[in-house]
Amino acid sequence: MSQLWSSSKIPPPPTTTTTTTGPIRRFGQIIKLKPEHVAKYKEIHAAVWPGVLEQIKDSNIRDYSIFHDPDSGILFASFKYVGTDYEADMKRMRENPKVREWWKLTDSLQESFVPGAKSSEDGEPAWWKGVEEVFYTP
Amino acid sequence: MSQLWSSSKIPPPPTTTTTTTGPIRRFGQIIKLKPEHVAKYKEIHAAVWPGVLEQIKDSNIRDYSIFHDPDSGILFASFKYVGTDYEADMKRMRENPKVREWWKLTDSLQESFVPGAKSSEDGEPAWWKGVEEVFYTP
Repeated sequence: MSQLWSSSKIPPPPTTTTTTTGPIRRFGQIIKLKPEHVAKYKEIHAAVWPGVLEQIKDSNIRDYSIFHDPDSGILFASFKYVGTDYEADMKRMRENPKVREWWKLTDSLQESFVPGAKSSEDGEPAWWKGVEEVFYTP
Repeated sequence: MSQLWSSSKIPPPPTTTTTTTGPIRRFGQIIKLKPEHVAKYKEIHAAVWPGVLEQIKDSNIRDYSIFHDPDSGILFASFKYVGTDYEADMKRMRENPKVREWWKLTDSLQESFVPGAKSSEDGEPAWWKGVEEVFYTP
């Protein structure tokens, strides 16, 4: 888990799922986990800092999974955004010192697939690479 | 979208999420999409056959996304199983002629990462490769 996305590359909202407060946006992202840090990554993600989990929830992120393929080293994340003011929610995430500290730790275990990406905090270009949803059924 | 999983390799149930009918199981899987078939894959998944969608729902699969990374060619699937009789639900899926026909089509566009995997219908070893969930927050 690291920076969730680049603010300039917000995927289009899905067309099939809505709630009373607005459309739910689904996101998929990938990054590479350095093979020598697999154990460390799993260890810290088995007990993510409470302040980070609180900020995720407060920023209207829900149903957030990260999967790992040991052969390719790829981490795959999927989550949903359920809020109505995406920019503001992400700004609070970026400004949270606990989240920034967490990102420093997790960035050090990862390699971005995005050319020129420097860190989660830098934001542009995004640290995690967005992937396109090609199928969805509720 | 192809065969969902191998019956002998059922991931352990998650520990955090429950409903009144039982635990929800979350699944992540990957497969390779042949680069020359990207357009075809997207086209058919923009309009999946109704009989296939019905069987997915009837087999208690929910919230099923497939994402694509054009650089690696990887398709990543995530979904949830919300039923209480997994084996029976998967058996109905495998026995549905429409699903088997769909799998023949989608298999032809994919390459399995699983050594020895022959097809979605064969089931063992599984056509899609299961990946481990290393983080989840609701």
